[in-house]
Amino acid sequence: MHIILLSGGSGKRLWPLSNEIRSKQFIPIFKCEDGTYESMIQRVYRQVKSVDPDATVTIATSKSQVSAIRNQLGDGVGISVEPCRRDTFPAIALSVAYLHDVQGVGLEEPVVVCPVDPFVEDDYFVALRRLSALAEEGTANLTLMGIEPTYPSEKYGYILPRAKGEVSAVSTFKEKPTVKVAEGYIAQGALWNGGVFAFKLGYVLRRAHEIIDFKDYTDLFAKYASLTKISFDYAVVERERSIAVMRFGGIWRDLGTWNTLTEAMSEPTMGKAILGDGCEGVSVINEMNVPVLCMGLKDVIVAAAPDGILVTDKEASGRIKPYVDGIEQQIMFAEKSWGRYRVLDVQDESMTLKVTLKAGQSMSYHAHAHRDEVWTVVAGEGETLVDGMAQAVHPGDVITILAGCKHRVKARTELTLIEVQLGREITVQDKTKYPEP
Amino acid sequence: MHIILLSGGSGKRLWPLSNEIRSKQFIPIFKCEDGTYESMIQRVYRQVKSVDPDATVTIATSKSQVSAIRNQLGDGVGISVEPCRRDTFPAIALSVAYLHDVQGVGLEEPVVVCPVDPFVEDDYFVALRRLSALAEEGTANLTLMGIEPTYPSEKYGYILPRAKGEVSAVSTFKEKPTVKVAEGYIAQGALWNGGVFAFKLGYVLRRAHEIIDFKDYTDLFAKYASLTKISFDYAVVERERSIAVMRFGGIWRDLGTWNTLTEAMSEPTMGKAILGDGCEGVSVINEMNVPVLCMGLKDVIVAAAPDGILVTDKEASGRIKPYVDGIEQQIMFAEKSWGRYRVLDVQDESMTLKVTLKAGQSMSYHAHAHRDEVWTVVAGEGETLVDGMAQAVHPGDVITILAGCKHRVKARTELTLIEVQLGREITVQDKTKYPEP
Repeated sequence: MHIILLSGGSGKRLWPLSNEIRSKQFIPIFKCEDGTYESMIQRVYRQVKSVDPDATVTIATSKSQVSAIRNQLGDGVGISVEPCRRDTFPAIALSVAYLHDVQGVGLEEPVVVCPVDPFVEDDYFVALRRLSALAEEGTANLTLMGIEPTYPSEKYGYILPRAKGEVSAVSTFKEKPTVKVAEGYIAQGALWNGGVFAFKLGYVLRRAHEIIDFKDYTDLFAKYASLTKISFDYAVVERERSIAVMRFGGIWRDLGTWNTLTEAMSEPTMGKAILGDGCEGVSVINEMNVPVLCMGLKDVIVAAAPDGILVTDKEASGRIKPYVDGIEQQIMFAEKSWGRYRVLDVQDESMTLKVTLKAGQSMSYHAHAHRDEVWTVVAGEGETLVDGMAQAVHPGDVITILAGCKHRVKARTELTLIEVQLGREITVQDKTKYPEP
Repeated sequence: MHIILLSGGSGKRLWPLSNEIRSKQFIPIFKCEDGTYESMIQRVYRQVKSVDPDATVTIATSKSQVSAIRNQLGDGVGISVEPCRRDTFPAIALSVAYLHDVQGVGLEEPVVVCPVDPFVEDDYFVALRRLSALAEEGTANLTLMGIEPTYPSEKYGYILPRAKGEVSAVSTFKEKPTVKVAEGYIAQGALWNGGVFAFKLGYVLRRAHEIIDFKDYTDLFAKYASLTKISFDYAVVERERSIAVMRFGGIWRDLGTWNTLTEAMSEPTMGKAILGDGCEGVSVINEMNVPVLCMGLKDVIVAAAPDGILVTDKEASGRIKPYVDGIEQQIMFAEKSWGRYRVLDVQDESMTLKVTLKAGQSMSYHAHAHRDEVWTVVAGEGETLVDGMAQAVHPGDVITILAGCKHRVKARTELTLIEVQLGREITVQDKTKYPEP
């Protein structure tokens, strides 16, 4: 089975754990049997592989997520990087071209596309395999998964099948309705459209060539910024008459809000938390190193992270976006290909960070025009390169880097350093990369 | 008027803003007209001085509070330092001896004793002046303030006056009752005992000499640790027949819990806070540098500080103590005579702090046996002394201090440095002070 997982969005709805550079799918939030935590993307990847060890998984995403994906899933996964955002049709076309031209998937082979963020059990992936098999049979050009509704939701589009069997031709699609209208659809046997579908690779590639003038993956990638924004629904689904739907009755939860996310957590708290006196239906997700104490609360979610603290009634949690849009702030935490950093302190003319590099990793060789930096190694062993001079470093070593000075550190074992930045203009933009000498 | 303010307690009830070394009376929580914030002790001191500019104020407290008192009130206030905790009678005896022997207050002069933490208006201090005048008249040996109850509280002792006038002899004292019993007391005209009383200095000094064998203030201070713990009520009040009570009908609120404290705040939020969608009766006190976002909450208090995060229903907030007793943690913030520090990061073998010294201040010259330190100056100008060698320091300067090395920094202007501590045994106990060479 070939799966394309669509991994998009900046995920402000899960602030303060998600932010502009850390999307919700990367937050380690689901407890595993061994006591560690996995993220949505790790969970989905693990589930795909347990149902179909031979499945090839390709993640369609933006450049900003590549480091986090490599950190969390390793090198076994394919990544189709969108150079910029151009809606779902160009994104799917690019990853289909990637599958064909980079991974060598044949035109007759089936491909399944699904979002990365629903919370599902293994039976969902068994259903994806069946969806893939239906696409391979080729009865319809496009085979959608229709999810059996559990309530008349306003959040989803609906699919009306012609017949009641497991697989049926599609009669019609309906946009997100009101609750009242949704009740009517459900009475007619409608299914939720969860954005999951399968097709033969060649089918979407043909449609892509009809709409976009490109030679191959490399060419499409190169001209990606010039493409018109167009959704897959508009470009393909609405113009296609040969569409089937396969019904799915298993667990399927959309983890788009704090409320649905905490419902999917196996335990009420994560991190240092004390649920005291009279707490009922309280969820705490605490990424800070100090305790959260809750007393006498009902149906409240508390989320604490370096970027901020959220305290919300469960029902109200879905209305977070406009508030987060109004918060202008320094990014306080980031995951990078080489490790991670956290901002510890911000002042007018200085900033203090904790930087951790994974064993064997190195940051790029670079310089800053407008700030000095002082590194104090606090854990691990490594090697610094400062203006061409290499030096082994250990805990307690201090490296002073003046503005203009080229520098990098490479970790032999996992290495942590405290970085003090000093200057009047401290910005992430002030960074010039150089090749190592 | 001579006032002794009793400033005790570690104030776990206001965690995470108060902790073992930072009591509730020092938290800047009341908004002033100029937009700055003042603490309970600053508010009380300001109010005393505005009602009676000539009042001498003496604070009876423990050693750990001296720095905070000097920082917040300056040098105009007297401090009677209890070398250790020995209950209220030794504490009051010590401060009365301090007033007599150090401040030169005469035996016939009246003294008023009151706790530092009730939330009151100026009329309370006018009443204290009247209480002082009554003590000076000498009709009774001891004159108490009786507060007119606003509800049948279980939290206070009650005073039953003989008559209904403004001043009356006391008929009897009652211990903290049940609500039912309190209702009966109030029907009989009982008043709350707020722990406020006045006397002629010589009266308490005589009682002290009868109970404790000591010469003068210096002698009493020296033998303080050997004194028996005994309350002022038990040692004095219960044995005295000549007691009067003066009624007070103004605003008097006990700020012992988050609920009463937030009621006394003039604004619902302090620090970075957003009260969103459907919040009613929500109070936020945020000492962190990142925002707190609240949505859909009713009657909830959120308090965020370097030590932790509290989210509590207002009614439940009074039951905090056992939970806080169960939290074992590093002190993350402290106020010192020379400035303040905040712990930014804690790891197995390192700790990172931000240290700020006030202009003109210096830390003591000291050394650590088991840790190295690295200072990076990030703001201000000053002078370091390291193993006898003085050096002017500016932002960007780095000072490396190996274990065993004597060191201190002195601030010329307000000076901030990032201190990285490195070692296997990092403790506050590992510190030896030396005289400067």
